[in-house]
Amino acid sequence: MRYIALAQWTRNVVTLGLAIIFASFVNAFARADPLPSWNDGAAKKAITDFVARVTTQGGADFVPPEERIATFDNDGTLWCEQPYYFQLAFAFDEAKAMAPKHPEWKSKQPFKALLDHDQKALAATGEKGLLQIVAATHSGMTINEFTKSVLDWMAVARHPRFHRPYDSLVYQPMLELLAYLRANGFKTFIVSGGGVEFMRPWVEKAYGIPPEQVVGSSGVVKFQFGAGGKPELMKEAKVEFIDDGPGKPVGINRFIGRRPILAFGNSDGDLQMLQWTMAGSGARFAGIVHHTDAAREYAYDRQSRIGKLDKAWDEAEARGWTVVDMKQDWKTVFSAAAAKETKP
Amino acid sequence: MRYIALAQWTRNVVTLGLAIIFASFVNAFARADPLPSWNDGAAKKAITDFVARVTTQGGADFVPPEERIATFDNDGTLWCEQPYYFQLAFAFDEAKAMAPKHPEWKSKQPFKALLDHDQKALAATGEKGLLQIVAATHSGMTINEFTKSVLDWMAVARHPRFHRPYDSLVYQPMLELLAYLRANGFKTFIVSGGGVEFMRPWVEKAYGIPPEQVVGSSGVVKFQFGAGGKPELMKEAKVEFIDDGPGKPVGINRFIGRRPILAFGNSDGDLQMLQWTMAGSGARFAGIVHHTDAAREYAYDRQSRIGKLDKAWDEAEARGWTVVDMKQDWKTVFSAAAAKETKP
Repeated sequence: MRYIALAQWTRNVVTLGLAIIFASFVNAFARADPLPSWNDGAAKKAITDFVARVTTQGGADFVPPEERIATFDNDGTLWCEQPYYFQLAFAFDEAKAMAPKHPEWKSKQPFKALLDHDQKALAATGEKGLLQIVAATHSGMTINEFTKSVLDWMAVARHPRFHRPYDSLVYQPMLELLAYLRANGFKTFIVSGGGVEFMRPWVEKAYGIPPEQVVGSSGVVKFQFGAGGKPELMKEAKVEFIDDGPGKPVGINRFIGRRPILAFGNSDGDLQMLQWTMAGSGARFAGIVHHTDAAREYAYDRQSRIGKLDKAWDEAEARGWTVVDMKQDWKTVFSAAAAKETKP
Repeated sequence: MRYIALAQWTRNVVTLGLAIIFASFVNAFARADPLPSWNDGAAKKAITDFVARVTTQGGADFVPPEERIATFDNDGTLWCEQPYYFQLAFAFDEAKAMAPKHPEWKSKQPFKALLDHDQKALAATGEKGLLQIVAATHSGMTINEFTKSVLDWMAVARHPRFHRPYDSLVYQPMLELLAYLRANGFKTFIVSGGGVEFMRPWVEKAYGIPPEQVVGSSGVVKFQFGAGGKPELMKEAKVEFIDDGPGKPVGINRFIGRRPILAFGNSDGDLQMLQWTMAGSGARFAGIVHHTDAAREYAYDRQSRIGKLDKAWDEAEARGWTVVDMKQDWKTVFSAAAAKETKP
């Protein structure tokens, strides 16, 4: 029966070997850098230190998983917002596509300026003109129809500088941050001034954030019975909620009902969200993406018309919030994986 | 070396024995009734059949987990709503507690009637009077202060008939249904005409539904800086959104952004939510709790002022939705576990 003892010995050695290999693998995996696109520096360290503090069971700053709420602005924080908000690019393209059905637009501002490619005249119509174009392209259809138009546009529209689909211009370091937070028990939300119906169709694929975790601006929607008596939700040309500036903590309260322990923004429109986040008790984190990289993306702050960062920057400096310097802190800017999906 | 072979044989037998025990346990667990408080009948069968269909990978009706959205009305569906909505009981108690600070209420309706315990005069002030009492007790304080007042009230207030805390008057069969759905990959939401700030403080403990999955009616909330420059959210005396009737599909769209595949209500205020749910493609489930049990709870439907079930009942009959007969379908009504927590 010697062979049985030998077989058992062999089995024990193999089992031990597998255990060692497995342990090494787990160890290596645990030590793998969760934020590989972030350069080592103060910003990265502040993030990983914070996550370690709030997830250490028994530690002074431990936060139970259900309270690990993280909110992110979208435009300029998770994806690019230059040369102007991508939702505006969508509205312009939609208006042009709708023009044949609106012959009156040929002689009516702001539509005339848009159709004539007269940027100066378009700019002269100001915010009121832009809102008219947004209203015309964001109402008078059902939610389902609007969702389809967003996805159709996203599939064919290209950014004027990068010649890539807009939803591929998402920041790789922020994708890693979202995944890292979720792996540490956080629930990640978007809290954006952008339209909630414009974001929901594509953010789940782009960021791994489901529609029910998207807070945004909205227009009035009406329940009605359409053709064939089928219930439908119709988008009306009336603003309901602006999820920007002081609207952000209000939106967070309405949609989430808990105060975030981490928030990230990039402009003065995020200031109140960051203030609200930091005013809670316990460990908290406020982050700002500072666009400093004209070569790889854009460089803008206090003087910018889009994504102006002025008061929020001052407050970040005064209070020691984390300001991410895109040029210094990020190894890469845009997601290569998202770019690969680009069809020629 | 015979003893080694014997030891190995013994070990094999023990291992096999443990495996059999474990398999039996798993099997028994899998076959355990997930809805023990539901009598066997059409309603229970409709629920379990539906869940089996949408969770069977490769089946014709399979629904991926992220789309398994289930929405539940609260008043009369998850907890009792008689003799009148519990939020109204809260408002009455709060108004009485606030009265010393409002001497003018002694001679001002509807407050005078409330303070005089004059139910006839109070009823005469109608819906307008009730709304005044709700407004007076639901505004002029911060969200944090209001949350505290709800929890304080819930700890001491008792139902006039059952003499139990209001949040213990939750339906055991519905708690089992919520848990059963979540165990099958559903995300459960409340979609209620009740105030969102009134529900959020206690629903997580009562139903296992986190604040961010509660959709309800709301008043306007304002971000401001309070004493010491601390950011705060102030509740204003202005209705913002009524999450009832046609407002329910609108609220679902705004907060969740996906159409539910299962919805449960109990009154005409849930009709449009059920219609919206059933109008989607694929397998869908609409359920109505019919209050038929005057002995254990209450019996009411077409003629009731609270929780009127008339048009939704007709539509349920016409379309073959599941109508739960409380008396016939439920073995128990209220949660015994919740009752145990009652302090004398």
